[in-house]
Parts: sequence; C-alpha cells; structure tokens
Amino acid sequence: MKIGRLTILGVGLIGGSLALALKKRGVVEQVTGWSRREQTLQKALELGVIDRAEPDPGAAVQGAEIAVIGVPVGAMESLFRRLAPHLEAQTVLTDVGSTKGSVVEAARRAFAEPPPLFVPGHPVAGTEQSGVEAAFAELYQDRRVILTPLPGTDRDASSRIRTMWEQCGAEVVEMEVAHHDQVLAATSHLPHMLAYTLVDSLARMEESEEMFRLAAGGFRDFTRIASSDPQMWHDICLANRDALLVMLERFSADLARLKDAIREGEGEHLKQTFLRAKRARDRFCG
Amino acid sequence: MKIGRLTILGVGLIGGSLALALKKRGVVEQVTGWSRREQTLQKALELGVIDRAEPDPGAAVQGAEIAVIGVPVGAMESLFRRLAPHLEAQTVLTDVGSTKGSVVEAARRAFAEPPPLFVPGHPVAGTEQSGVEAAFAELYQDRRVILTPLPGTDRDASSRIRTMWEQCGAEVVEMEVAHHDQVLAATSHLPHMLAYTLVDSLARMEESEEMFRLAAGGFRDFTRIASSDPQMWHDICLANRDALLVMLERFSADLARLKDAIREGEGEHLKQTFLRAKRARDRFCG
Repeated sequence: MKIGRLTILGVGLIGGSLALALKKRGVVEQVTGWSRREQTLQKALELGVIDRAEPDPGAAVQGAEIAVIGVPVGAMESLFRRLAPHLEAQTVLTDVGSTKGSVVEAARRAFAEPPPLFVPGHPVAGTEQSGVEAAFAELYQDRRVILTPLPGTDRDASSRIRTMWEQCGAEVVEMEVAHHDQVLAATSHLPHMLAYTLVDSLARMEESEEMFRLAAGGFRDFTRIASSDPQMWHDICLANRDALLVMLERFSADLARLKDAIREGEGEHLKQTFLRAKRARDRFCG
Repeated sequence: MKIGRLTILGVGLIGGSLALALKKRGVVEQVTGWSRREQTLQKALELGVIDRAEPDPGAAVQGAEIAVIGVPVGAMESLFRRLAPHLEAQTVLTDVGSTKGSVVEAARRAFAEPPPLFVPGHPVAGTEQSGVEAAFAELYQDRRVILTPLPGTDRDASSRIRTMWEQCGAEVVEMEVAHHDQVLAATSHLPHMLAYTLVDSLARMEESEEMFRLAAGGFRDFTRIASSDPQMWHDICLANRDALLVMLERFSADLARLKDAIREGEGEHLKQTFLRAKRARDRFCG
C-alpha cells in the first residue's frame, strides 16, 4: 500500500515515529504536520519527520488520504471540532490515544456521529521519553497495535489503517472499545500509577536523596515509567477513570492481603504469591 | 590487599560474583565453597567460581582469612550455629544479606555475642536471576555496598571487608543497622512487593493470557523484579517485617489519596504528583 499524502496532527514521539517508519519503508510520499506549538513543527521539519508544516489543523488535513491524531487524549475533542468542517470524504481518520472509550465519546460529541472513515487505534509502544526529538523509525517493530473499529466503521478504512501499521513492523489486533480500556488499565495505566506513587512517596521522605542514591538497578527499571509525561498521564487517568479505578481497587485489596500476610508471618501465603507471580512473569516476558 | 584463602558459604549469584570479581583482579589465591546443595558446589567448581568444594561448613572455614555468608537471610542463624565451634581467631566473617537487623539478631543468638570480626554487609546489586550460573565478575562495578559494623566490631576487620568490595569496583558506605533496613524497605523491598502483587493480580484474572500478550515494554521493565527468587523474598519479608510494614502503610495511604483524586477528577493533584515523581526520578536516575 502506498500513501500519497499523510497528515500527522500532534507530532510527538508516537506520531513522529509513525511518519519516520513509513518514510523509511518508502510507503508515504508526503507527510504534512500540525502541532499546537510552532516550535515542535519547526523541529519536526528539521528532523525530516514531516515534509510540510501547517499551522492550521483544518488546512493540514486538506487532500490527506490518512490523517493520524497524536495529541494527548484530553485534547482530542477540541481538535475533532476544529477538523469537522474540513474533513474530506476520502480522508481516513485514525488516532493513537492510550484510551479508546474517551476518544470515541469525544468523536461522538464533535461529529454528532463518528464518521465511518474514523478508525480508533492505539499503538502499544512508547518509551518514557516524549516529544518529536525522541521519535525513531523502529518504535513499532514487533509491537502490538490495537484497533477498535465501531459498528459503523468502514471496513476498507479499518483495513487501510491495519496495513499502515503492519508496514511499520507492528502486529495489529482488533477488539472492542471497552475491552481495550480494561486491558490497558491493567497492564499500563495501573503500573504507571504505582510507579508514580512510589517515587513520589520516597521523594517526599526526609532521607530521599540518600535513598535514591542507594537504590539498585531493580529500582531504576521499576520506576522508569515514572519519568513519563505528567500531562499525558493526567489525561489518561481522567479519560479511563472507571476502568482504572476498578484495577486500583483490585490491586489495593491484593496488596492489603499481602500486608496482612507479612504482619502475621504467613510464610506459605507469601511464598505462593511470589511463586505464582514469578511463573506468570517468566512465562510471558521471559 | 591480597586474600590467601577466601571461603564462600552459599555460592549463588551474589557470593559467586564476588569470588569471580576477586579472582579476575588477582586478589585471591584460593576460594573454598560450601553450599547446601551438592549440585551447586559441583556447578561452582565447573564454572571456576570456586577452587575447592567442601561439603561441611565448619571444615570450609578452617584456615580462611575471610568467610562470606551468602545464604538466604532465613537460613543464616542455623549456619551461624554450625560455624560457631569452628571459627578461628583470625577469620573475618561477613555476610551479603538484604536485611541487616535480622542477621545481627541471628548472630547474637548463635554466638551469644556477635564476634568482633563479624562485619555485617549488603552489596546493593543483583539481577532477577539467581544461582551460581548467573554469577559474573562485573556485578559490583560501580554499585554500592553497605556495611553496618556494630559497636563491638573490630575496625581492622571492617576495613578489610571495605577494601575487598572496593577491589570489586564497588563504592562502600557505612550506616547503622536500623537505618539500612529502613532505606532498603523503601527502595527495594517495597518495590518487590508491588511488582509481585501486580503480576499476581493480573495472573489471577480471566483474561490474563491476553493481557500479558498485549503488555508493552514499560510493563516488562516494571515487573522484572517479580521474576526474583520467591524463597529469598519470603525470607526478606519476614526478616525486615517492621520496616517493610511501615513503608507499605505509607505507600497504601498515598495510593488511596491518588485513587480519590482520580475518582473526584482532581486534575491538579494528579498533575502535581506525576510532575514531582518525574522530576525526582529524572534527577536521580536520569
């Protein structure tokens, strides 16, 4: 599949890496970029991530075959509203937001009905870095991309977005919106909350400097995701509030049970918990 | 400093890597090993980690200048008791346990009074691997080793153990026993509890296979420490119970506060928490 004109709205790590991956494989002819910040657009031009900078989002999607929305999920609705009067009949619209229910709701509010050529998507990839400077063409190699097409979504549009991601080296899976949000709450949003809370708890302790200095490599890995973009995670928490709260409750109950076992010296409970976790982790990540 | 005869009691990742590091730098002439399992001793001999295998711990420490105890912290007391009648006046004894209060207590019980040549220690290094097969000479390069000498500990003995670790490339710091246990509860023991609990929570959910398959790189790093040895962590939890419970309470309260903020949509609280955490993490681990 060739893409004549691709538009990236919000040229950060995710949108920028997509542009670089498609360019590297010669899939796309011209990439137009829009960003809320002029400085980002200039940087994206300099880095060769985009070919053309467009300061107006409506103008940026003119003539686009595919338009990819890469702004934080809290900024999607206002962008949808700005795009609505300008979207052309041939333009397939997709997004890369970490939550899907909120994005579909935003589209419903902005467009009255989500357009048939809108394919909600989420590349499950990233680093703790953010911004177009961190973008690289290999980000999606062997990673998963989840698409959550709606009942009214055009099948050809879904299929084009699927092919686009596969051309970046990703494996594409489809699922329902609500299921996506539950799965991501468990495997991504909850771990981010734990890492942020742990680092913040320690940072607010008197001896925090000494503690961080003495921390081992395990701590560095465990807390890597606490270096993620605060604004983006603020948006995700509020956008996926319900599913995240369910997981936070479940986790808190399990942690309280572990705490009881430690307090009461229930060695067998501890050993079994750690062993189940180790087996599951070795099996899936080993 | 040269060590004529070094004895490692419990030849795993930590004790084995110490032997390899000292050998590589030509610091030690002969390494004697003892392990609870015959198979481990044979493996250690084959890998060149030890030069001599000794199936009896009392015999293993005969003639040793330095004896290093590397068994799990729950097994220390019974080993101390077996060593007590055999320890010679010149042998400096140290350990590598992740908790220090429990080890000092164990020494007090086994020896009546901890011997003046006993220097409690803890190399803050390791991987999620365990066993002598995982040992490597560079494990301690640029890592911290904490020593917690007691009021009665011989200063020359402390100094020899400090030099031994420095020769492995480590930076040695001294602190009090209780302070060590608090710092490690915060930066190591608590994170392990969170990682184990998260993986176990997810593993017990119906859709666990799918969830683990869809997890991104952040999840892999976050949960790496949940692949650690369950028996070792069982011992650590019970050995450092009080300090760990304090940290678990503090973390649970902070997580409950975050949960409230998500439920009530307190965006500013979320952003500030994530920002403080990111700044602290970038500063200390960046």
